Formats: sequence, structure tokens, C-alpha cells
Amino acid sequence: MRPSGRAPDQMRAITIEPNFTRHAEGSVLIGFGDTKVLVTASVEERVPPFLRGKGQGWVTAEYGMLPRATHTRGSREAAKGKQSGRTQEIQRLIGRSLRAVTDMAALGERQIVLDCDVIQADGGTRTASISGAWVALRLAVNGLMQAGKIEKDPIAQKVAAISCGIFQGNPVLDLDYDEDSNADADGNFVLLENGNIAEAQATAEHATYDEEALLRLLRLARIGCTEIFAAQERAIRA
Amino acid sequence: MRPSGRAPDQMRAITIEPNFTRHAEGSVLIGFGDTKVLVTASVEERVPPFLRGKGQGWVTAEYGMLPRATHTRGSREAAKGKQSGRTQEIQRLIGRSLRAVTDMAALGERQIVLDCDVIQADGGTRTASISGAWVALRLAVNGLMQAGKIEKDPIAQKVAAISCGIFQGNPVLDLDYDEDSNADADGNFVLLENGNIAEAQATAEHATYDEEALLRLLRLARIGCTEIFAAQERAIRA
Amino acid sequence: MRPSGRAPDQMRAITIEPNFTRHAEGSVLIGFGDTKVLVTASVEERVPPFLRGKGQGWVTAEYGMLPRATHTRGSREAAKGKQSGRTQEIQRLIGRSLRAVTDMAALGERQIVLDCDVIQADGGTRTASISGAWVALRLAVNGLMQAGKIEKDPIAQKVAAISCGIFQGNPVLDLDYDEDSNADADGNFVLLENGNIAEAQATAEHATYDEEALLRLLRLARIGCTEIFAAQERAIRA
Amino acid sequence: MRPSGRAPDQMRAITIEPNFTRHAEGSVLIGFGDTKVLVTASVEERVPPFLRGKGQGWVTAEYGMLPRATHTRGSREAAKGKQSGRTQEIQRLIGRSLRAVTDMAALGERQIVLDCDVIQADGGTRTASISGAWVALRLAVNGLMQAGKIEKDPIAQKVAAISCGIFQGNPVLDLDYDEDSNADADGNFVLLENGNIAEAQATAEHATYDEEALLRLLRLARIGCTEIFAAQERAIRA
Amino acid sequence: MRPSGRAPDQMRAITIEPNFTRHAEGSVLIGFGDTKVLVTASVEERVPPFLRGKGQGWVTAEYGMLPRATHTRGSREAAKGKQSGRTQEIQRLIGRSLRAVTDMAALGERQIVLDCDVIQADGGTRTASISGAWVALRLAVNGLMQAGKIEKDPIAQKVAAISCGIFQGNPVLDLDYDEDSNADADGNFVLLENGNIAEAQATAEHATYDEEALLRLLRLARIGCTEIFAAQERAIRA
Amino acid sequence: MRPSGRAPDQMRAITIEPNFTRHAEGSVLIGFGDTKVLVTASVEERVPPFLRGKGQGWVTAEYGMLPRATHTRGSREAAKGKQSGRTQEIQRLIGRSLRAVTDMAALGERQIVLDCDVIQADGGTRTASISGAWVALRLAVNGLMQAGKIEKDPIAQKVAAISCGIFQGNPVLDLDYDEDSNADADGNFVLLENGNIAEAQATAEHATYDEEALLRLLRLARIGCTEIFAAQERAIRA
Repeated sequence: MRPSGRAPDQMRAITIEPNFTRHAEGSVLIGFGDTKVLVTASVEERVPPFLRGKGQGWVTAEYGMLPRATHTRGSREAAKGKQSGRTQEIQRLIGRSLRAVTDMAALGERQIVLDCDVIQADGGTRTASISGAWVALRLAVNGLMQAGKIEKDPIAQKVAAISCGIFQGNPVLDLDYDEDSNADADGNFVLLENGNIAEAQATAEHATYDEEALLRLLRLARIGCTEIFAAQERAIRA
Repeated sequence: MRPSGRAPDQMRAITIEPNFTRHAEGSVLIGFGDTKVLVTASVEERVPPFLRGKGQGWVTAEYGMLPRATHTRGSREAAKGKQSGRTQEIQRLIGRSLRAVTDMAALGERQIVLDCDVIQADGGTRTASISGAWVALRLAVNGLMQAGKIEKDPIAQKVAAISCGIFQGNPVLDLDYDEDSNADADGNFVLLENGNIAEAQATAEHATYDEEALLRLLRLARIGCTEIFAAQERAIRA
Repeated sequence: MRPSGRAPDQMRAITIEPNFTRHAEGSVLIGFGDTKVLVTASVEERVPPFLRGKGQGWVTAEYGMLPRATHTRGSREAAKGKQSGRTQEIQRLIGRSLRAVTDMAALGERQIVLDCDVIQADGGTRTASISGAWVALRLAVNGLMQAGKIEKDPIAQKVAAISCGIFQGNPVLDLDYDEDSNADADGNFVLLENGNIAEAQATAEHATYDEEALLRLLRLARIGCTEIFAAQERAIRA
Repeated sequence: MRPSGRAPDQMRAITIEPNFTRHAEGSVLIGFGDTKVLVTASVEERVPPFLRGKGQGWVTAEYGMLPRATHTRGSREAAKGKQSGRTQEIQRLIGRSLRAVTDMAALGERQIVLDCDVIQADGGTRTASISGAWVALRLAVNGLMQAGKIEKDPIAQKVAAISCGIFQGNPVLDLDYDEDSNADADGNFVLLENGNIAEAQATAEHATYDEEALLRLLRLARIGCTEIFAAQERAIRA
Repeated sequence: MRPSGRAPDQMRAITIEPNFTRHAEGSVLIGFGDTKVLVTASVEERVPPFLRGKGQGWVTAEYGMLPRATHTRGSREAAKGKQSGRTQEIQRLIGRSLRAVTDMAALGERQIVLDCDVIQADGGTRTASISGAWVALRLAVNGLMQAGKIEKDPIAQKVAAISCGIFQGNPVLDLDYDEDSNADADGNFVLLENGNIAEAQATAEHATYDEEALLRLLRLARIGCTEIFAAQERAIRA
Repeated sequence: MRPSGRAPDQMRAITIEPNFTRHAEGSVLIGFGDTKVLVTASVEERVPPFLRGKGQGWVTAEYGMLPRATHTRGSREAAKGKQSGRTQEIQRLIGRSLRAVTDMAALGERQIVLDCDVIQADGGTRTASISGAWVALRLAVNGLMQAGKIEKDPIAQKVAAISCGIFQGNPVLDLDYDEDSNADADGNFVLLENGNIAEAQATAEHATYDEEALLRLLRLARIGCTEIFAAQERAIRA
């Protein structure tokens, strides 16, 4: 029995509000239940030093959590003067996931920065960030194409991400905070619309797991991502 | 003629959405036109070292701007590893403003932290932060009183803040970004409901100003704060 | 009755010792009573990146306090690895105040850095810094003009600053440490010789104040600045 | 054909030199081919603040790379003033992996810090670190048991880690630098002697991958870890 | 021929102005020619953690250079966010030198911090700092003895320091900036009044040197320190 | 009687293992008894900004200590976010020492970075670093000459370093940790093969010393360096 009463393969409600802010070239407020992440895509007509003059673009991400997004207030990373290892790990994952579906030559020598800021946290902030970032990226690239700055669409297909885990011995989809903080194991899967995997991660927290469990988590992730792909589609058609 | 077509003494639309997030003891999304600030009030049952054992509470604030709150993306302070001078100046001002209406003995030996995070910026983020922070603080204190943790209400009255400035030679109320970035002078006034002043600041940007101008700015601020006090009242009654 | 026995509108002794150090293009040791600040003006034949190639100059300031300038030793900011919010707020104010009287086109594409280091503190270090910085800037610009590097004098007029506050219910001029640490409200005013205002700030510390009080503080500031302008004049003629 | 001429399921030579340094309670120089990592285990009779007084121990890890462990010199993290995101991600993984086989109650209220410093890098430094750290931890715990400080052995079983990846379309075991820098996808698997999984990670670098590929990587990892378990056993019997 | 016209064994004018600032328990402005250093001694009724409860005191030092103490402006260490290696090396030397003449048991469980801030630099700032710090320390300890906080004088004798070097092939005493920046070798000697050595350092800059040269530098240092001891004596009798 | 039973003028065993790592242009594992330092020389075809375009090269050094090189674990400087004053002092000394025997014009516009990382510490890490760095530098320069990148040998002669100190009243050579931590005074001497001195430093720790003692320390250093020069010669002929 899950604390929320959900079935093992049941996602929380997915909400995607496109164009949530005015200034960004793409933006979205994505919700996986009570987890709410604001993602903005900023187009910059320059690339990092290691890519200069190579005719290729770049997609990167930064992640942050507002101090009181969580049950108890966490300290502000800007005030502490550094980003935690967790923050850096997450923003590296987001960037890799979006690059997996982007053709850097087609993007041209420009960079798109995806800022993922967690307004409210209830588990799954990194997977909501990736799923929302795809929409923000899509909107920003649409703008570049409409402005005639890009000819060939650099985004091959959708990418989405979802967490799964073993909770009280059972594989479950889309962990909320109550589950996440007590899971035996938890994983994050980044999947493409064509079924391919961009990233699979599963970590033992309180108990190690076997190969069958890994496969069951992956299958749950496929269920969840199918639902997210549909929500992404609705958002970009809105 | 103001870029927005507003009259010199006309505020932008004020929106205050209380209880915007779940976890914080008080929270609000405040908007002054396109400026949107999320403010949360976190109650902590401890005080800073310099107050320990003195039977007094403390109210303090932190301020941040999401990287793409602005027209072009700014760098993330957490990634740069330090808060800018501007950020620190603003958060010090917010904290002082709220302490001006709080009875620290009545609050008891606990701290309330006001996190003001700018979701979207269009001028006046510090004054929107102060005005919203009062509502978040009020909500958090209401909770403490309902829980029986505080007997006497530590909040004496409302406090609100608004920017005013000299734009193209004319005193105007509630500068938006277009005005703010070209103002001859700009000021921020923090006023109490009883008419008293908690903070007055007016800075020459492109032209110095005279005593008469300072007084006119203050009078405009009174007009604006009256409107904010009403919006605060509606928000806490919601 | 003020702790020092001064009348409410009485300044402490102002001392300005020009050319206090050898290497700087302009330098001064300024004293407001026991507050002593060493200000140097350094001319650099380059401008910050945002001004390059625009044919304009820049004036900026840095502020520091020697660890034992104060009654009890404070920690050294260089050892702590960052400047406090207070330090940054002060150095931003000093820079703005001097820029208010400087014609950046006439200065030419060069920067003047004003370093204000407090040797001994007894209240009013930021206003002594501004008042001394004007003399150091004047001396440095005189040197540039004598060397034929500048044709038109970029400094339009004098600027000076002084603190005022409400102490035990009474408006008083030029607060010393005993007053400053117990004031109901304190303010800093940056005034031009022609009577215009470059910056007005008044902050409630232990009690908010009304409009009449703000005006009385400003009038006291005018009295103080008149005296400072005279001392500045004597210093540059020395 | 692999650059090294190895078969797809062939590990590089594994070398484990126990007691490589004098001062540490456990130490090892582990080699996976030309990758050489020095791991030390330091026993500290204290635990982190969040565990104090709970009668439990802790195992944590830090990771570093000597500046010229790599083909071209990298900058020294101590000189840059911060650890990279990659470094933090790796040291978090090492710590989690070792905690997966350690009974914290049996360890008692003490901490063991595993320092993994890469002397020479040729791919697979994180997996060599984990595999070597288990030996260093085992040696340190043996010392504690011999000294009578621990009664029940807190280490349930061996843990080892190995990288696998898709290189030129083929799944291969134990990537060296030439393979790692050109792999389509690469993964790291942390396995227990009983076959269970502590961590599975597989990341698309130049091409996403399918479920079958994920399973083939896991099977290669099982082959590699079996070999590492044998080398660990030899090392602790030496 | 020295640039200053001084004889090889001729010091610059030594000036020591005791009680230069009001708040410090001991303070001095020391000059070696155009090198001017403000030294304050701050008595703190606590010791560093490693000495707590051992009945011993501590003497330590911090060193800083005002940004425009030098010919061209250097960046402010507080703004850069760290102290340079040179600064740390110097402040460690100053602390060691003063501890060499202080009886820590007689000082009692308190710390004296010597802040050495260079107001103007013309070579020899570290040796002027040490020589001035002894006077500031002496004044602070005198105060403790007069207040009855210390019974036995913890300062055994005077300590002074001076730089010497090989300039254009000749050993010379008390290098100024012109000499220092072109010396073949330069050294710093910290001597006690009884002739003993607390620290000897001599570094090849443009040419290595032989044993005879080392001895000649030491002899010049004795000449210089004799003069400094006399100036210290005059200062504490003033 | 020395704790190790060595004679006063007896060095510990010197071991120098050249080409210890694969990637560096020069590398060495040097041992002075139980002190083990890995030194790598990295050739970079660029120079620091202050030397650009001057046709000269540069030699610099960085120093680090693995956290558990010592008896008890020290904190990792990369994790603390800064290098200690001791670390910076040592790496400055290493760089100076190697530059004393290098002809920068003959080296050409390139930089050689010497990374000295202490694997195990038992006193004398800085002198082992210098002595080993010379071998690594020699090997790297040999490579440049064999590749035809340098014509004239830029290394004039050998440089070596050794510590000496006063232990229980007696001058002794090559202090190990037991002696170093209890010495009355300790010194480090950097000597050239022709007998000249690159650096002499002797510091009073528990007792000041006289001129005769300084000379005896220098004589012991000559004995030690003669032995190191022979070991360096064997290493580069290996």
C-alpha cells in the first residue's frame, strides 16, 4: 500500500504550463503532483570555449532548489557560496539528457541554457526538471526556427524522465517524498520516445536489488514516460 | 508620458496570492505588474547566536533572483559562489523593514526567515518583496498564535514598500524596468500603515535632485502604499 | 544631552590631510573627530569591460575597515574570504556619490579607483569616506589636467556626506559611535555644493519616524556639509 | 576490435597491493591496467553530527585526481578552490557503494573515511576506487576487530565495481581511456558477491541504447566483478 | 652605489609612533624610510581551540597591504576573496618571531593578535611589521600587567627584524623597493637583543650566493637590529 | 641520541624511482626514509601572462599532501576550498629553488609545472620535493632536447635540498617526524652542486640559536646534499 493510495504503476497528476514567464525564449511550470519546477530556456548566441569555431551548438542546464521548497528550510546555496554535490550531479544529468536528443550541428553555434528551479519539492524534482526542460527547449527552438535562425529542426524526438523505486519490497512508479525517503532502492530513467534509453540509474538505499527488480523498474519507467510524452505533446500544442 | 501609458501616480496591478506553496508556514506570490516574487516565511525554533537566551526572537530575510527572471539571463549566484553586493543590500533592507513592525519579545525565542525569490523581474523587486513578506510573515505568525505558541500578537501594524523616481523630469510612482533603467533618480520608501517611515532612500542616477523632489517622491509613495495596504488586507482575509 | 556634550547641530572637528601617502595620484587622511579614514585615488588607464571603446571613464570605490579600527577586534575580511554585505553596501554608495559629480566623457577612457580604508572608527565612516574621496579624486584629476591628459575639468562641483539621526528623540548631526549604536533612526545624506541631493537614506533602527523628522535630518545635513565643503576647499588649496 | 586488442569480455590486469602506506588503518594501491588508485581507510572515533548519539557508525569517501594523473595536466582542485561536479559525483558513489555492505550498528559510533586518490588515470578510476576501497575498509575493520573494538563483523560481503560500455556498436568490459573517450554509451555497475546490485548506471554518450544493451552491459559487469572479487580475496589473505 | 645614496651598512630613518590609534591595547605606526606600517595589538580573553584549558596563551599575527600602498594599485585581498601566498607566508613569520620572545605560560590563557597593515610600501614591510609588532605587544602586555592580569612579565627581551641583500654584487642593509626589485639575493633576519637568531632566511633571486655572503648579510642585520632595538626602547619610554 | 638511532650527520635512505608514472614528461617517486613524494613535470607550450612574448620560459611548482599521508588524517584542501598557508609557502619555495638553476631564455617560451604530491609523510617533505623535482625537471628537459625543441641545455647544474635542525641541543641532519615535531630549531637548505646556496632558512621553534649553530646546520646540509646529488645522478642515468 503506497502512502498516497496510488497503484504501483500510477503516476501523480502531470501538469505542464507553457510560457509561464515572459522573458525566457522558452519556459514552463511543470508539476508531478506537489512537485513544482519552473524551467526556462535561454538562447545565447555564443558557445562555451571548447566549442568555439566548430560550427556546433551546446545545451546545458543549471538546477536549484528554493530554500523553502522542502518540508524544512534548507540553506540557500548562493549564501553558502557553493552548490552541493547533489545539485551538481542533478544539473549534469539534466544537461546530458537533453543533449541526447539534440543535433548540435543543426542547432548552430549557439547555446541554450535550461534553468530548472524547484518551487516546491515532493520527490522527483530531477525527473520533473528533465521532462519540463524538454518542453522549454522545444519552445525555444521553435522560436529560433520561426525567426529563420535555424533551418533543420535539431530536436530529433522527445525525452522524458521518471523515478521508480522499491518501496516496502514492491516496485513502484513516480516516488513522492514519503516513499523516496524510505525506499529500499530508487532509480531514475531517462527515456526517448522511440523506446531507447538515455540514462538508467538505480541505487540501493536500504537494500540491494537483483536483476529482475532492475527490469521491473525499467518497465514502470516506460509506463510513466508514455504518460509524460503525452503531456509534453499537449503542452507544445497549447 | 510613461512608456506604459500610466498616470504619474498610478500603480501597476497588485496581485497577492496567499499560501502559494505548501510547506512554508507562510507564503505568497506577489505581483506588481509583471514583477513576480515568491515569498515564504519559515519559522525556526532557534535564534542567531547573538540573541540566545535573551528571550527575544528575530526576523531576517534572504533575496534571490532566478537567472532568467530578467530580460537577458544573469549568472546564478550559487554557481558563481557568492551573492552580489546588490543582493546583500536588498536582503538587509527587507529584514530591517519587517523588524520595524515586529515586537521581538512578543515573538519569543524563535526566528522567522523570509525568502524572497524573484520569478520574473520588471522593476521594483525589492519593494514587492517587502510588501509580500509582510503577508507571509502575518500568515506565519497567525499560525503560531493559533497553535498557542505566541500569546500577544508581535506584529503591530502593516508595512509596505514602493519605488518612486524622477523619469524624464517628472516624479512617477512604481517604476517598471523601462523607467527604472533610464530614471534620473530613483527611490524606495518603506512606510507603515500609521504613516510613519521605516526607510527612505533616494539615489541620483543620471541627475541629482532637490528637496522638493524628495518630498514629491515621498507623497507618491504614500499613494502607492495605501493601495498595497488594501491588497495586503484582502490577501490575509482570503 | 549628547554623550559628547555637543550641540544637536554641532559637527565634530573635521581634519583633512592631503597627500598623506606618496604613491597614489591623490590621497587624503580625513578625520571626523576620532573617525579616521585614509582615502587614495588611483588612476588606471583602462575602464571596466562594459565601457570599453565608448570614450567614457569610470569612478569606483572600495571600502575596508582595519580589523582593530573598532572598539573590539573584528575579523579581517581578506582572511574570512569575503566582504560583508555592509562593506559592499558602503562601497557602492561611495562610488555612486562620486560619479554624481563627475563628467565621464570629460574624464576620458580611464578609471579612478577610490580606496577608503578606515584606520579608526567612531561612527560616520561612510560619510567621512565620501567626503575624503572627493578631495582625493580632485587631487588626482588635477594631476591629470596638469599632465595635459584631460582638457575639460570633469568634476563639476564638490560632493560631501554626513550622517544625522534621531537620538533620544532629538535630531542630531554627525553621530559618533555612542550615538550611532543607540539611535532611534539614522540617516546618511550626500549633498552637492549647489544644494542638490545625490543620495538620501534614513533608516529606522529602534523607532520609525515621520516626515517632519526626515526634513529636520536633511536640514542638519545641510549644516554639516557646508562645514565639510569649506574643509575640502582648504585641503585642496593647501 | 578494441584498441588494446582485448576480447569484449576481457578485463585489464588487476593488481592490488595491500598496506601500501604506513599510517592509514587500511591502505591499498589498486591497478586496473594503467589506472592506479591509492586508497586509504582512516578510522575516526567520531561520527558526523546527524548520527551523534545514535549508536551507529558511518562510512564515507573522498576522491581526488593528481593533476598529472591524466594525459594532459588538469588544474589542481585545491588551487582552484573547489571540487568539480564530477569529483563530487564520484565520491558520493564510492561512499554509497561501501555503505551498501556495511552494518552501521555493528561498526559502532565511529567513522571510516576512504580517500581515493588517482595516481595515474586510464579509464575506470571510479570503479577501481570502489573495488580498492573495499579492501582498505576490510583491512581497517580487521584491525578494529583484532583490537577488540568491534565484536560482530560489520562487513557482510564483498562489493566491487566495473565499467562497461558500447564501443563501436559492441558491448565491452572495463573501458580504457581510448574506449571511454569515444564510447557510444558507458556504464558503471556496483555488484555484491551474492549477485545483487548496489548501483547500476548507464549513460548515452554518443548514442542512446536499448534494453537488450543494458542487460548485456550488466552481464559483462558480472564477469568483471567475479574477477575482482577473486583479486580482493587474494589481497586480504596476503 | 645604492640608488638612495646610502652606505652599504646604512639603515633608512626609523620612526616609531606609539599609541597611534585609540581602541587597540597597543598600537604603533612604524616607518623604515617611506615604508609605513600600522601595527595594533588586540588582547582577547580566549585562546585557539588547540590550547584551550592548557593554561597557556598565544600570540599570532595577520598582515595586509592597503591596495594603493604600492607604486601601482594591487587588488584588494578581501575583494578577491583570499589572501595571497605571500601574505600568508609573511603573517606566519611575524607570529613565529613574536612567539620566540614570549613566555606563553606567563601570558596566561589569552591571545594577543598583532595586525600589521601596510599603509605605504617601499621595501621591508615584513621586517618593519615584526619590529613594530614588538612595540605594540610590549604596550599591550604593559597594560595587562598594570591591570594586574599578569604577574610575571611574559616578554623576555626585544626582537627586531631587518632585510639585507646582495645588490649589484655588494651586501647592503635595509633594502628599499628599488634595490629589492633588482637584488641578486635578499634575506630577512629576525634577531633577539641578546644576539640570538629567531629566523634567518636568504633567497637567491637573480644569483645564488656563497657561505661568506650569508655571513656578511647576517652581520649587516646585526648592525640594523641594534639601531632598531634603540628605537623600540625610545618608543616604549615615550 | 636520535629516536631513529642515526648518527647526527646521517641521512635516511634516499630512493629515487624515475619514470614512476606514464603520462608526465618527467616523473619520479622520491623517498627520504618513510617520506615518499611523487613528483611529475608537465611541459606546457605556453607561459604565464606576465611573460608572454618575452621569449622566456617559466618553471613553477604546486604541492599537496594526500589526506592520510600523515599519522592522523588531515582534511583535504580541495574539499576545504583553499590551500593552507603552509602549502603555499612550500610550493613557492619549490618553484624558486628550481628556477635558480634554470636558464629561462634557453628553455624557450614554455612552462614546466612541477607537481609534488606527498604520498606518505615522515618529515622533510619539502626538501624531498625539491630534490625529486630536479630529477623530474631534468627528465622533462631531456625529452625536449631529444625532440629538438630546445637546443642549449637550460639546466646549469643540480639543485638539492635537505632539512637540518637542533634536536635536544644537538645539530642533526635530515629530521624525521619524531625529531621535527620536537626540534628546538629547524632549517631547510637548498644547495647547488657547485656549493652555492639558493635558499637558507632556519627557524627557532622552541629555542633561538646562535651564529655558530647556523653554520653547523649549513655544514650538515652540505653533507646531506652531496649524498642527494649522487642519488639524483644515479636516477637520471637509470
